Amino acid sequence: MHISATPNRSVSTLFLSATDMVHLIQRKGFANCLQGIVQAIRTDFLRWQDFDKSARVANHSSDGVIELMPISDNCLYSFKYVNGHPKNTQAGLSTVMAFGVLADVPTGTPLLLSELTLTTALRTAATSALAATVLARPDSRVMALIGNGAQSEFQALAFQQLVGIEELHLFDLDPRATEKLMHNLQGTGLRLHACNNVAQAVRGADIVTTVTADKTNATILTEDMLEPGMHINGVGGDCPGKTELHPGVLTRGNVFVEFAPQSRVEGDIQQMPADFPVTELWEVLAGRKPARSSRDEITVFDSVGFALEDYSALRFMHDTARALGIGEHIALIPQLSDPKNLYAALRTPQHIVRRVA
Amino acid sequence: MHISATPNRSVSTLFLSATDMVHLIQRKGFANCLQGIVQAIRTDFLRWQDFDKSARVANHSSDGVIELMPISDNCLYSFKYVNGHPKNTQAGLSTVMAFGVLADVPTGTPLLLSELTLTTALRTAATSALAATVLARPDSRVMALIGNGAQSEFQALAFQQLVGIEELHLFDLDPRATEKLMHNLQGTGLRLHACNNVAQAVRGADIVTTVTADKTNATILTEDMLEPGMHINGVGGDCPGKTELHPGVLTRGNVFVEFAPQSRVEGDIQQMPADFPVTELWEVLAGRKPARSSRDEITVFDSVGFALEDYSALRFMHDTARALGIGEHIALIPQLSDPKNLYAALRTPQHIVRRVA
Repeated sequence: MHISATPNRSVSTLFLSATDMVHLIQRKGFANCLQGIVQAIRTDFLRWQDFDKSARVANHSSDGVIELMPISDNCLYSFKYVNGHPKNTQAGLSTVMAFGVLADVPTGTPLLLSELTLTTALRTAATSALAATVLARPDSRVMALIGNGAQSEFQALAFQQLVGIEELHLFDLDPRATEKLMHNLQGTGLRLHACNNVAQAVRGADIVTTVTADKTNATILTEDMLEPGMHINGVGGDCPGKTELHPGVLTRGNVFVEFAPQSRVEGDIQQMPADFPVTELWEVLAGRKPARSSRDEITVFDSVGFALEDYSALRFMHDTARALGIGEHIALIPQLSDPKNLYAALRTPQHIVRRVA
Repeated sequence: MHISATPNRSVSTLFLSATDMVHLIQRKGFANCLQGIVQAIRTDFLRWQDFDKSARVANHSSDGVIELMPISDNCLYSFKYVNGHPKNTQAGLSTVMAFGVLADVPTGTPLLLSELTLTTALRTAATSALAATVLARPDSRVMALIGNGAQSEFQALAFQQLVGIEELHLFDLDPRATEKLMHNLQGTGLRLHACNNVAQAVRGADIVTTVTADKTNATILTEDMLEPGMHINGVGGDCPGKTELHPGVLTRGNVFVEFAPQSRVEGDIQQMPADFPVTELWEVLAGRKPARSSRDEITVFDSVGFALEDYSALRFMHDTARALGIGEHIALIPQLSDPKNLYAALRTPQHIVRRVA
């Protein structure tokens, strides 16, 4: 018996490995990637209501956490897998590793499987910089950068390129981390100062970025360090039991978040009551809520990382990879000559058409 | 400046494509795969309390649903991506497409990325058969199979190999589906009868398996069709608004489910009150709750598919692929010589070591 096949559509998935992503960023250019991701995030945040949003799903263990971050609109669906294991570096592994998928909503077909370890660093920095463009004083030139680990160079360059930062005050408990950062940022034009403690780094800064890794209720930044008009970019407090800002910092400033239901569980505001007033970033971008109202106001962006930022970054990477011809097509899904005849694929392997990139 | 690298651990991920999976199932043997997965599921269901369980996360659209199904114990984490788009076959695409990941809990490293379209068909049939071995009458020989689509052959063979079914009564609204199933099952030793309607197929059956695809509150099976001692294996009602069994079927029999919090939303019991009595399958396997108490009792397995079944299947596939040397290693995660120096990977691509399978 011969079963006539329905004209079948390709279900091949574009795969961007970590190696491909390095090539993509090198060919497109680091600054162009940052800018493209900021643009994609801004566009998507401005159509906030189009998205089916939920807080991420976390599986906690004694050593860390593994999270899934899904989101979708009527056209595209994305999710990110991301872990957070602060002790990983002792074993030669990254604290944060990530990958994700972009899928077609009308059919459920996975379109893109991509590394997201490098991309997460880019999109986190892009989101921080986007928030600072509306929340920090426009004449901000000096940034304190507390925590000089894997994410720190991305923050530094995003704030240089998108916010106009010219000078960095650096501090990390591990002086080798600061040394590594200074080495990596040689030749960028940024003026770099290694500091002896947090207070010294924060003094005179227009913007304070905290991006520390320890999974603990740390008090990196306290109220007495704040100066009028500062913008706080709190990046490292992003998990239950993982905070960086003293509650006094949060009450002194106006607090902005990505997606309030998630931030109240994961952000530095997990320390505050459930009705602690916050403004969602999209509301500011859309002009529905005021950003900074005076030069002396203290603003706090309590960032945890939201699924929509990965959706935007995946969209940008997908477009860029296709334009540059980077990546390869993989058979994540069987290509069947008759989709109702899955079993036949097991008997005649020819039923699965392997597509070459 | 030279930064001395921490001795680094491999973060390569084994990738099993759909093509690899066909080879794996052919080399290991279909029956051995079914048996191996049943064994893995039984083992894992017997340590139910070890798992961090949650209902799956669903993003619904007008055409279908995309779901993520995470689960973990202290050692391994898994998730599955799976869609359900009943109209896909009109476009030559599968209704259900899936892939998933097995990861190391202590570090968050993704160990295995695997196709799960074929594997889901195997594990769903394995779970149905496992439930039937404890819920159906031991002398069951005749099964009605309502819905003869992509999942049907897997159900038929699992019930032949693991439950002792010798004869199938087949019905599908689309006679070509039944014709396809009969063609695929030639030479298996199963006696096959195409029927004109559901009632005819159900008459005289020991087990009734419903595995239809329409996303609607269908009434495939009604109370008047039931005969004393029947076991109902309801597979297709697995989504809000997608049911197969008339409520009268559920009140006539004793109902068994996988994970009650998920089944109450997705299973046929979504039609029943929140306190409708159900027994979880693991309780029966563990001997904590009775299975069938008499020959004449009607039992209903209201199956929706639970994350633990995918965890077990991924475990089995990972072990089997490594034993047979199937699959290839991919750079889903960057391999860094210094995990704290992610940025360096962008400047010197040699920092990323591409591992060959």
